[in-house]
Amino acid sequence: AGEDWSEASVELLESMHTADIAAVLSKVSPEECLRIFGLLSRKRWVELFAYLSIPRQTEILELLSVKDGRYILTHLFPDDRTALLEQLPAEKLANFLKLLSPDDVKQVLKQLGYPEESVGRLMNTHFVAVKAHWTIKHALEYIRVHSLQGETINTIFVIDRERRLKDAIELKHFLLGHLNDRVETIMPGNVISIEADQDREEAARVIKHYDIEVLPVIDHQGVLLGIMTVDDIMDVVEQEATEDFHKMGSVGVVDLSLRDATPALLYRKRVGWLVLLTFVNIFSGAGIAHFEATIEAVIVLVFFLPLIVASSGNAGAQSATLMVRALATGDIQRRDWLRMWGKELLVSLGLGVTMALAIVMIGVWRGGVDVGMVVALSMFLVVIVGSMVGMLLPFALSRFNFDPAAASAPLITSIADVTGILIYFSIATAFLL
Amino acid sequence: AGEDWSEASVELLESMHTADIAAVLSKVSPEECLRIFGLLSRKRWVELFAYLSIPRQTEILELLSVKDGRYILTHLFPDDRTALLEQLPAEKLANFLKLLSPDDVKQVLKQLGYPEESVGRLMNTHFVAVKAHWTIKHALEYIRVHSLQGETINTIFVIDRERRLKDAIELKHFLLGHLNDRVETIMPGNVISIEADQDREEAARVIKHYDIEVLPVIDHQGVLLGIMTVDDIMDVVEQEATEDFHKMGSVGVVDLSLRDATPALLYRKRVGWLVLLTFVNIFSGAGIAHFEATIEAVIVLVFFLPLIVASSGNAGAQSATLMVRALATGDIQRRDWLRMWGKELLVSLGLGVTMALAIVMIGVWRGGVDVGMVVALSMFLVVIVGSMVGMLLPFALSRFNFDPAAASAPLITSIADVTGILIYFSIATAFLL
Repeated sequence: AGEDWSEASVELLESMHTADIAAVLSKVSPEECLRIFGLLSRKRWVELFAYLSIPRQTEILELLSVKDGRYILTHLFPDDRTALLEQLPAEKLANFLKLLSPDDVKQVLKQLGYPEESVGRLMNTHFVAVKAHWTIKHALEYIRVHSLQGETINTIFVIDRERRLKDAIELKHFLLGHLNDRVETIMPGNVISIEADQDREEAARVIKHYDIEVLPVIDHQGVLLGIMTVDDIMDVVEQEATEDFHKMGSVGVVDLSLRDATPALLYRKRVGWLVLLTFVNIFSGAGIAHFEATIEAVIVLVFFLPLIVASSGNAGAQSATLMVRALATGDIQRRDWLRMWGKELLVSLGLGVTMALAIVMIGVWRGGVDVGMVVALSMFLVVIVGSMVGMLLPFALSRFNFDPAAASAPLITSIADVTGILIYFSIATAFLL
Repeated sequence: AGEDWSEASVELLESMHTADIAAVLSKVSPEECLRIFGLLSRKRWVELFAYLSIPRQTEILELLSVKDGRYILTHLFPDDRTALLEQLPAEKLANFLKLLSPDDVKQVLKQLGYPEESVGRLMNTHFVAVKAHWTIKHALEYIRVHSLQGETINTIFVIDRERRLKDAIELKHFLLGHLNDRVETIMPGNVISIEADQDREEAARVIKHYDIEVLPVIDHQGVLLGIMTVDDIMDVVEQEATEDFHKMGSVGVVDLSLRDATPALLYRKRVGWLVLLTFVNIFSGAGIAHFEATIEAVIVLVFFLPLIVASSGNAGAQSATLMVRALATGDIQRRDWLRMWGKELLVSLGLGVTMALAIVMIGVWRGGVDVGMVVALSMFLVVIVGSMVGMLLPFALSRFNFDPAAASAPLITSIADVTGILIYFSIATAFLL
């Protein structure tokens, strides 16, 4: 009966898409993963392995026999292999490197030599390149034989005798060319490339700007080292958006899955900003203490305090959000600040008037005409000041080479609190005392 | 001299990448665009046109002669054409449709018939498909002849006699197959596809989950209608991240470039939330008014008010940010809420203790031991409550089919204000009066 069950499982697994099996594997214990691996052909192992998360990959590799571990590491695409190995502590890395051939070790160590988050770390070193002086016939035969080793053959790279990148040609143009012409006769020119030590965000920018599918990676001499494809970039785009998201919420970047992150890690990622913001808020407290006499004289002012400071913070959070995101996607650049400032001034004038009108009647009702006027004027001003802080801070941070996303909603809110309190009670003191 | 200048420009333009020319065109007037178009070959027009923003495309089309407009609209890839036409008001749409052939009009109207943000609107209807019963030789010849009309030929789709999708085969497997075998003998099986009326976010999820380059789009009968490629999806991923970003900042979704958005549009996108949040903040004001006696008796309490309520809001904004992003990327699902809640409880206990310790000495210094204790206990509780609100609200919104990202930082801050005020002054009233 055990046999039958196992046979049924094999059939089930074979009918499933590898990505779906991987989704199952991410939810069971490493030992159960190993059992499922045992039911699959070795060829399928590598494909399946590439879909797993890095922590899961490490657990499985440690349970596998040396022979099986070597099989997987040898057959993984180089970029997937580098992504795994770069996450390992030195000791484990040394153990795994022992499983590889000298050539593969050289490739891994070379890729790990590039800076973190650089193109060199991410690139795939398997690609199909033909020489410019070959005939199209020769090139097509070469492509046919080597097509299995390339991640994409939509685009074929052309190199010279020193392996320097000359151009990129779409496969369809090979298929339509005259067989006896040389490859160089169908080169379109204008190939776009990137150097391996550049940041991965720059690669994302280039791929998006030129709307290309595959970006060749070269060294300083122009030698073709590897390729980055648009799906690598999609992960980069998503990860960068997550980083900005976390920063906007005053959370340190959590680069693990939230599912895997321990409470201790999450605590560490949050406590720093939370305590730091307290120091900003102490100024708010001090501001209030400074106006104690005003508050004691006109206690109804306290009723409007949360409304006014919160509106300032909210308006600021809105502006900061718009600016941070537009700077991140390249929709606006730092040099656009003056133009954005003019627009923000108009928008916040409108918002200020609206909010003042929204609150003036409540002010009159709770505290009489004088208080109503003070409240409305304060609201008008704090909304404008909050918007200005929220709009300018991301540009200022970027100017001094900080990440604009550090202009987080909580930071803007805290700054808006201080300025809001000062504006509100100053006006109240001037008009009511 | 005018001639020379023009010749030099032509040479300059010819050496530039189309994407870079497009970047220039986005910064000059529509009339100047037209002059630059005049210097380029018609073939280049179409390529360049596809890189431009939709508003710019519209402006140029309106300036071009009927003949030139027809040329561009006819030669654009169908997905680019649909993206342009779906943005037009009905009257302009009718004018532009007149430029197209009856077949193209049919295609446009069919695509515009799919729901907004659906796969049907985004798909490219140009692709290369071969029949399952053909020989590989016949298929390769067909691919060679039709390769120019496909956006990608890495993947070749296989259909039956009724044009129903049977499978997808990588071109490399065609290149390695036996020429006289039938196509069906090399079909790997397990093709992943999506129906045209599905949401584009679902297409993004499928492409990411299966890590595929091109996703075939079918109708309810399984007939192959078009393809979506990973670069279409990259735009979707980025746009969805921007939408969530804006929502987290309490801004309505600004789907224009911030550069092009008018102050009036930005005002409209912001004023709604800003006014709405005021109503939440009125409860804060009412809370304070309710405790007027406590405040008058121990005026020093007001000093700590901003510290305590801001910390609650900040902790809540942190939790909400983590949850909203993880729900959006699929890192966690709605059913994970209980597990996340347990983790959040642990994290916020730690944060609460830390924040209470950070503030207790200031409390003792400003107001004596009693006030110090009240302040510390309040801080401990509001950080926990704020975190809980921030963590649970995104799940609750998702449960009732709202977007979790509506749990924006300003909304969480406003709710945390109310609960913070109630907790703080209740504790103070109980211990100090």
